[in-house]
Amino acid sequence: MSNSYRELIRDEVRELPFYVPGKPIEELRRERGLTNVVKLASNENSWGTDPAALDAIIKFLPDIFRYPDSKAYDLRLTIAASLGLKTEQFVFGNGSEEIIKLIALAFFRAGDEILMGKPTFPRYSSVSKMMGATPIELPCNNGYYPLERILDCITIHTRAVFICNPNNPTGTVLEEEHLREFVSRVPENVLLIFDEAYYEFMEIPFSGLLFLEEHPVIVLRTFSKAFGLAGLRIGFAISSSELIDGMERVREAFNVNALVQVAALAAWKNREYLQQIIAANAVERRYLTNELEGMGAKTFPSQTNFVMAFFPGMGTRLSEQLLDKGIIVRPGGGFGYPDGLRITVGTREENSMLLTALRNIITNKVT
Amino acid sequence: MSNSYRELIRDEVRELPFYVPGKPIEELRRERGLTNVVKLASNENSWGTDPAALDAIIKFLPDIFRYPDSKAYDLRLTIAASLGLKTEQFVFGNGSEEIIKLIALAFFRAGDEILMGKPTFPRYSSVSKMMGATPIELPCNNGYYPLERILDCITIHTRAVFICNPNNPTGTVLEEEHLREFVSRVPENVLLIFDEAYYEFMEIPFSGLLFLEEHPVIVLRTFSKAFGLAGLRIGFAISSSELIDGMERVREAFNVNALVQVAALAAWKNREYLQQIIAANAVERRYLTNELEGMGAKTFPSQTNFVMAFFPGMGTRLSEQLLDKGIIVRPGGGFGYPDGLRITVGTREENSMLLTALRNIITNKVT
Repeated sequence: MSNSYRELIRDEVRELPFYVPGKPIEELRRERGLTNVVKLASNENSWGTDPAALDAIIKFLPDIFRYPDSKAYDLRLTIAASLGLKTEQFVFGNGSEEIIKLIALAFFRAGDEILMGKPTFPRYSSVSKMMGATPIELPCNNGYYPLERILDCITIHTRAVFICNPNNPTGTVLEEEHLREFVSRVPENVLLIFDEAYYEFMEIPFSGLLFLEEHPVIVLRTFSKAFGLAGLRIGFAISSSELIDGMERVREAFNVNALVQVAALAAWKNREYLQQIIAANAVERRYLTNELEGMGAKTFPSQTNFVMAFFPGMGTRLSEQLLDKGIIVRPGGGFGYPDGLRITVGTREENSMLLTALRNIITNKVT
Repeated sequence: MSNSYRELIRDEVRELPFYVPGKPIEELRRERGLTNVVKLASNENSWGTDPAALDAIIKFLPDIFRYPDSKAYDLRLTIAASLGLKTEQFVFGNGSEEIIKLIALAFFRAGDEILMGKPTFPRYSSVSKMMGATPIELPCNNGYYPLERILDCITIHTRAVFICNPNNPTGTVLEEEHLREFVSRVPENVLLIFDEAYYEFMEIPFSGLLFLEEHPVIVLRTFSKAFGLAGLRIGFAISSSELIDGMERVREAFNVNALVQVAALAAWKNREYLQQIIAANAVERRYLTNELEGMGAKTFPSQTNFVMAFFPGMGTRLSEQLLDKGIIVRPGGGFGYPDGLRITVGTREENSMLLTALRNIITNKVT
């Protein structure tokens, strides 16, 4: 009987992989009876949420028995105005992970080929499979998104290309020049999806928005990283109104909760706090990178709030040993980097604890 | 050029209807310059959110820069224990509207037929179309879900049946006996989906859970109605672990935000507040129904927090005239009831304002 139940699941879904998130702090506490846990595994904003956003949440609490505004009216108006775009060029989602699913639902068909780098954010591949499309994963070059290989692999079946810039989990940024040339060579019926979750951390920010007039482009942004709202879930896509219309038709009416609408609005307006976070992150990323390299690790050049670091021959074991000490980082094995650790930039205190623990593990190993 | 963009949208999606939500209070204020607005249009809990849930939210605020627990661990454990089920029999969603989409993504294929009543919750039809399946809408009998007609329409192509009980927008409840006989006659490869969004308001609650052992069944519940958390978004499905596995594979990792996890847990545990809401709602529903019938309206017998009322020859105009007076109800036209108004049970103050306004409109019309 239960076997026949399993047969009710769509063929495309029955073996879809689960996303493996960074281990939650509570889970590590439960599992190992630890009290003091440092999490540098999910590229959250280590300095916490903008206090202005918290105030906005508290003020709105009496109204949460009401459904949220289906169109995120205030937030939409504000973001559209500050980017100089029309309100109908936006769709808001329950995190940009939901937006990625809306894109697949709106545009990907069985038999389509969807191109992407490897490693990159694993959801691009799974939503493609969910729709019966074929994800084609092309290896990054030394951590850089493989634009040339992508161009080589475009066929008449290619429906879309995902470009994660800065790329997760490598942290690298494409050169604007290089990207311009790439876009000019992509056929105009191929959708270009720029995932810019780490946009705010770029040294000289530039965006896929540059190509909005000349190509079918969707740009993704999130409030989960620099804006410190990962727990409340909101991301958005910017595109032409025609493509947004398709995504709106597969969106739930109340997909963006009421508290995150007011929180995101407050955080978006408070550029001062955002700049502080970006500055603190840059200082700490430099510190963390230097110290990691000082103990023999190699790193990819990062313009994000994480560092992909390689410890030849030690990666996977290292992440396990760090867990024993109450420190959670992301092991690189799932990304195809068995020697790698993806480490979120923490506060100075968190980074020091991580570095001390790493030094102890490595020293004990050598002696 | 923009025309070719539109062609990038999947055929199944290009004409999908948008859900039309109840008009938000802010929107009416903006449109008509009104300050005092009463909303009885979306079946929210008119008495507001459980204060215990609000406390839980405030306590959790410092942690919202972290991603939420992907598995809603604490909430899952608590609900599973109180229903005497296994934790792997649950999937949590961003409102039950997201769960409905997860069901479609996990189980519905092009060419499948999906049976449902009419009128009922419009998302059943739109998610079916989204997957290339055919929704077959069978007219309710005097507001009652059409079980006999559904049985008559089951074919080898039938993949699933949606049973909304109590039914939205009619408010009616099926008899347990009747439902038992229905289920015994449904082939065992047809998925039965019980949407029980209004379960807590039933006079003698009984659930599709009764059939969990004998049939592929999915039961939907929500915190948006009796639990007063519509703005924060959480619903869940209960099923066999095999069917849940399929839904988990199409779920985003962080689809349920962190604040609603703690709020729902607090609300679930506070049975006293829930009982107060249910009791207050029963009193006000009786009052509202009696008064509406007193002014000549017909109503369906409701076991929910709304009343479907019919004003022959007046429905659509009536809802417009109420808007002029700052009162939002749901016009029945969208449900196929042009004479109908779906009215949420409000507090005594809200109900009185509505009834006074209705009386004024009707009297002015007559004189």
